[in-house]
Amino acid sequence: MIFASGLSRGVFTAGNDVTELYAPKTTWKRYREFWLTQTKFLARLLNTRLVTVCAIRGACPAGGCVVALCCDYRVQTLEGTFGLNEVALGISVPKFWAELFLYRCIDRTKGESLLQRGLLVPPSDALQLGLIDEVVDAGELMSSANSALDRYLKVPSSARAMTKQTIRSNFSKEWASYAEEEAKGGWKMLNKPHIIKALGGVLLKLSGGKAKL
Amino acid sequence: MIFASGLSRGVFTAGNDVTELYAPKTTWKRYREFWLTQTKFLARLLNTRLVTVCAIRGACPAGGCVVALCCDYRVQTLEGTFGLNEVALGISVPKFWAELFLYRCIDRTKGESLLQRGLLVPPSDALQLGLIDEVVDAGELMSSANSALDRYLKVPSSARAMTKQTIRSNFSKEWASYAEEEAKGGWKMLNKPHIIKALGGVLLKLSGGKAKL
Amino acid sequence: MIFASGLSRGVFTAGNDVTELYAPKTTWKRYREFWLTQTKFLARLLNTRLVTVCAIRGACPAGGCVVALCCDYRVQTLEGTFGLNEVALGISVPKFWAELFLYRCIDRTKGESLLQRGLLVPPSDALQLGLIDEVVDAGELMSSANSALDRYLKVPSSARAMTKQTIRSNFSKEWASYAEEEAKGGWKMLNKPHIIKALGGVLLKLSGGKAKL
Repeated sequence: MIFASGLSRGVFTAGNDVTELYAPKTTWKRYREFWLTQTKFLARLLNTRLVTVCAIRGACPAGGCVVALCCDYRVQTLEGTFGLNEVALGISVPKFWAELFLYRCIDRTKGESLLQRGLLVPPSDALQLGLIDEVVDAGELMSSANSALDRYLKVPSSARAMTKQTIRSNFSKEWASYAEEEAKGGWKMLNKPHIIKALGGVLLKLSGGKAKL
Repeated sequence: MIFASGLSRGVFTAGNDVTELYAPKTTWKRYREFWLTQTKFLARLLNTRLVTVCAIRGACPAGGCVVALCCDYRVQTLEGTFGLNEVALGISVPKFWAELFLYRCIDRTKGESLLQRGLLVPPSDALQLGLIDEVVDAGELMSSANSALDRYLKVPSSARAMTKQTIRSNFSKEWASYAEEEAKGGWKMLNKPHIIKALGGVLLKLSGGKAKL
Repeated sequence: MIFASGLSRGVFTAGNDVTELYAPKTTWKRYREFWLTQTKFLARLLNTRLVTVCAIRGACPAGGCVVALCCDYRVQTLEGTFGLNEVALGISVPKFWAELFLYRCIDRTKGESLLQRGLLVPPSDALQLGLIDEVVDAGELMSSANSALDRYLKVPSSARAMTKQTIRSNFSKEWASYAEEEAKGGWKMLNKPHIIKALGGVLLKLSGGKAKL
């Protein structure tokens, strides 16, 4: 399975719809369902028997980054960004997103610094940190992703999938079972006045000043 | 303690005797004892108070690789291979073998990819990944292993051994206590028709086509 | 918050006062309080909401090293040493000190070897291993530390602090709750005749042969 963006702009995905995180525009019930659904998807993606490859064209922040980190292989275009930049938006990085990021990061101390400072890095740095596996010209993105997929499919798939799940199933289970507690903590955070203000600012900026908050 | 191969060929050890894994040629009782004995040995090797050095001449796949990973220091000849290639044989990598491999691997994402794809790497790559500590000409293998041993023996052995066990004893205990459950899962896997077929093929190849399956 | 040494010599801190570890010169009651207080401080330092930067001038062994590892950012002068050299003194590395060291170490196998052999490394090696973040000329130490602090303070502090604690609070809690058990084990170790002898030798050396043991 290959994840790729259908957008014409150079954006893999901008991550979560900020409206879903902006407390005045959502409800506890809606946010809880949003968070549980998303977490269930991510934890299952991490642990799927399928080979998963991410073809990343351009920007890959926040939610897009965590989708990529759940895959088996990540190839990104030369132009782009990669990382969990929640802090720059004024919110904290979800626990298992941070842990998965640091697990994949060769230099965990550098990784912690990126998370604490909400920084995105260019693909060349992400490659060096082990966060992505390959950097290519935009024109080669899909062929590189397909080649990676083929390499994984050369071996007996049952043994490959069992090995993948041996490595990942504990993390996946812990992640999924933490979702309910995380939703509660997240909702509490999203209702703090300074977070509402910060996310309101993000929405206003995204809408070019036209959002009604 | 130095582990070295007595074989004249360039093979440290080829790992487990595949006959012990081939369900039609063994029994649950025999396999269980085989697995528990092996796991007990490996978990104790990891946690021994002794200084353990692995002098690896040539190929070091699967079971040979995990013996090496349990040691304090690994020196390998320029010619050779290193890794857990179970998937290439059609079987999955045992849980704690994978975890120990990934713990020693500087780039865990690259390491996961090697495990999922059943790949062995040359010693120069293994060195870069942190999986081995030194690569030498074949003629210098034993002297290099002895020098490494001497370096570890320079410090007070009680403090060295306590520090080693402080770092490794939790992992060692969890590994040993998982053996029974793992034997059950392993036996179930080894009795799947496609696994029997795959391992039968390996045995046939190893015997030059002469094995009676 | 920046940690820096007020010593005129090139020593960040030599770590614990060895007298507090020398059984004939202390008591169980005193040692226990010493250990619990120290561990509580370190576990809280690791998990503080504040930005913590370590400006390390010169030598940074043992207890000084673990203070540095608890911080967000470490800058060290070109001349110096870094590491947990307990084994060289004849005692073992405390459990969570070793774990934090290995967590920050890019190459954990190399890190284990340093711990087992009680070795200190020069700042350039510590940088390459990910143990420190920056190496500078002595004259630039404080300005570099201040610049690092400023970089962390650019982002919303609430989101930064929450992310830091998301990453570190489990480790910090486990560390703090292990202190009592560790104090017991430590006291037992410190009363072994060969450890008393080894630490006595260290005290004698530190005092230039004048210590009354």
